[in-house]
Amino acid sequence: MQLYDFPAPTPRRIRMFLAEKGVEIPRVCVDIAKGEQFRPAFRAINPSCTVPALMLDNGTVLSEVPAIWHYLEATYSKPTLLGGNPEETALILMWERRMEFDGYFAAAEAFRNSVPAFACRALTGPHEYDQIEAVAARGRARMLNFYADLDARLATVEFVAGAAFTAADITAIVSVDFAQNAVGISVPERCENVLRWHERVAQRPSYQA
Amino acid sequence: MQLYDFPAPTPRRIRMFLAEKGVEIPRVCVDIAKGEQFRPAFRAINPSCTVPALMLDNGTVLSEVPAIWHYLEATYSKPTLLGGNPEETALILMWERRMEFDGYFAAAEAFRNSVPAFACRALTGPHEYDQIEAVAARGRARMLNFYADLDARLATVEFVAGAAFTAADITAIVSVDFAQNAVGISVPERCENVLRWHERVAQRPSYQA
Repeated sequence: MQLYDFPAPTPRRIRMFLAEKGVEIPRVCVDIAKGEQFRPAFRAINPSCTVPALMLDNGTVLSEVPAIWHYLEATYSKPTLLGGNPEETALILMWERRMEFDGYFAAAEAFRNSVPAFACRALTGPHEYDQIEAVAARGRARMLNFYADLDARLATVEFVAGAAFTAADITAIVSVDFAQNAVGISVPERCENVLRWHERVAQRPSYQA
Repeated sequence: MQLYDFPAPTPRRIRMFLAEKGVEIPRVCVDIAKGEQFRPAFRAINPSCTVPALMLDNGTVLSEVPAIWHYLEATYSKPTLLGGNPEETALILMWERRMEFDGYFAAAEAFRNSVPAFACRALTGPHEYDQIEAVAARGRARMLNFYADLDARLATVEFVAGAAFTAADITAIVSVDFAQNAVGISVPERCENVLRWHERVAQRPSYQA
């Protein structure tokens, strides 16, 4: 196996997942900043031009975070990050997806629609789409709603999907850091539950991944 | 178990899945056209205000299509729609997600940003977001790219994820029908592979679900 990787938020979701498992696999850097994901060499590996991608030993290439996670969870089952039975797994998938839709996609639309380097690249993938200023503004508004909703959730549970750290926490904290570091949308001080949870998750070794 | 349902594209993904399994479960209609998903009775069931939602016999409520599918696949394992081993499942999850991001989300943004009834509801969920005309236009452009990409894919395989009908085909055909019926973006005649695949999938009894 080898992971096509770059120091950016989306591949960080895979790196944190692997770090929680205590697994290291070979990594190949695809320099998104230089547009390497659009060059023929990488298109031949992943026609969607997205990073991360995981190449299996038989040559099969997986892209899309939930798909890669599924494969890694099946291969390295402990500690589980996607639940121990169908109900647990379904709840984790549900929460992870909410974190992505409400948090990650919010940060991404705020970022991609405002940063000059992403002109014509407002969406991931091989096709060009213009930036839309109103979408950058919407992304910022969504992110504030995300913080408020997550704060309410974390008032009653320790981690996003319940009592245990799961993949949902990975997407949530990567979303928060993405919004803070790339777009300057910090967690409001009133969101004390989010701040406490963030501090706690940031102490895990996987946070450095 | 009971399914909170409505004759709309997103819950159709669950109905088709159940029909492929040959399973019927009780359904409760949540009238999205009347905004019932925002009323206290349904908010108490699913605070995300999204339909479909699946209530299990123990009272747990699952929302989000991939989460509901996971639970249903584990409960009614045959015929499999999410793969028979980790690699197969990961590939189906990857293709399904591409169909959703490139197709379903494209149709949804074209629709929600242009239809008067969805004013202030450009995104799913409990928060209000204004329609953005440029996003409706982007959704239409994305849909045409989706048709072209899907046509290239279906030139080499029978179904979206390979040789077998899977959940990826459900999301793909629901996306096509959504774009055609709700926004008037038909499959171009030159996309012969998409048209042939659509005709074939539409012959399955589950298509009527």
